[in-house]
Amino acid sequence: MRLAELSERSGVSTTTIKYYLRERLLPPGRRITATQAEYGEEHLRRLRLVRALIQVGRVPVATAREVLTAVEDDSLGQHTRIGAAVWALPHGPEPAADDPATEAAQREVDRLLQKLDWDFSRAVAGLSPAYRTLVSAVAALTRLGYPCDVEHLTPYARISAQLAVHDLDLIEEYPTPLEKVEAAVMLTVLYEPVLLSLRRLAEAEESNRRFGENAK
Amino acid sequence: MRLAELSERSGVSTTTIKYYLRERLLPPGRRITATQAEYGEEHLRRLRLVRALIQVGRVPVATAREVLTAVEDDSLGQHTRIGAAVWALPHGPEPAADDPATEAAQREVDRLLQKLDWDFSRAVAGLSPAYRTLVSAVAALTRLGYPCDVEHLTPYARISAQLAVHDLDLIEEYPTPLEKVEAAVMLTVLYEPVLLSLRRLAEAEESNRRFGENAK
Repeated sequence: MRLAELSERSGVSTTTIKYYLRERLLPPGRRITATQAEYGEEHLRRLRLVRALIQVGRVPVATAREVLTAVEDDSLGQHTRIGAAVWALPHGPEPAADDPATEAAQREVDRLLQKLDWDFSRAVAGLSPAYRTLVSAVAALTRLGYPCDVEHLTPYARISAQLAVHDLDLIEEYPTPLEKVEAAVMLTVLYEPVLLSLRRLAEAEESNRRFGENAK
Repeated sequence: MRLAELSERSGVSTTTIKYYLRERLLPPGRRITATQAEYGEEHLRRLRLVRALIQVGRVPVATAREVLTAVEDDSLGQHTRIGAAVWALPHGPEPAADDPATEAAQREVDRLLQKLDWDFSRAVAGLSPAYRTLVSAVAALTRLGYPCDVEHLTPYARISAQLAVHDLDLIEEYPTPLEKVEAAVMLTVLYEPVLLSLRRLAEAEESNRRFGENAK
């Protein structure tokens, strides 16, 4: 398809598509003439992914490019490829260095991973942005006087494991390795607000059940 | 306790405490002399909450003040009070108006709430920021070609209901209504990064199990 059709089908303006091309977020189309190129379904899919990252995920352009480099790297095994792409995504704050609360939090997180037998996470711990964000978040809770030990974290971790099964089931519906990796990135980024808003709605329901006017 | 001790115990500088007092985020202490005031445990707890909101939750000062107004309003029932405080928290983007994807998303969300018997959420729907964020997120997923219908959302909603039971159990550990409401706000804000990072770690474990080098 030509640029105009790519724009029509994706809902992205030709100006924006040209910007993405210049920023190497989108691979070039197959050149037909000096001024025209042909684009395929893979461009449409990639465009959606770029849009998800930049518009919805609010990922900076340079970071989006890193994520896409990992997505495109078919020399990596499926698992490593998804990991590289997801690790490139923006994540929470880093834990404060040389800080007793951070050290205590790291001990609790390590004990949690051991208890759950999350061996992969234990193996890659310091390299994983999610591990570091978790340590940072646990340290923040503790500094503020809210308990966040293995006992408190375990139910949330087990529930997260259930979420992960559903997430991976969704990812596995896609036929090719490239589409699986794109889906993994999209679902990680796009389902975060779904999850957080469902949690708030569920809390409102549970609160109504326990404390509301008609609570038994 | 005097200002110096409040600063010592909370880890917040006296300058910042004075700022919070000026901004009416912290109620004044009991005045002893023209220049000195006495603070109690409730100030220490409130200071932690302000810190959680502003430093960790990155909530703007004006919004923090709205949240705290709801927290302090003991004329409201427990459930309404928690609701008012949590609704004042920052939430995701609003859905686009007059947009077919938004309308379709709203229909799916309404069908989901009906299926789950989340009657409270159905009753307050348009008023609830979480409801609007969910509609916005579902619309974004759909526009990007990722299915997000009742079938896809249901497992995430049921899992969120489990999370809510744990969240409310934690909140109920606190003895007074004021402390329960403060805990509800803190836990909503502070556990979000815990949940999102646990989900990413769990996804890495599940991905390793299915696709990793030693996958069966």
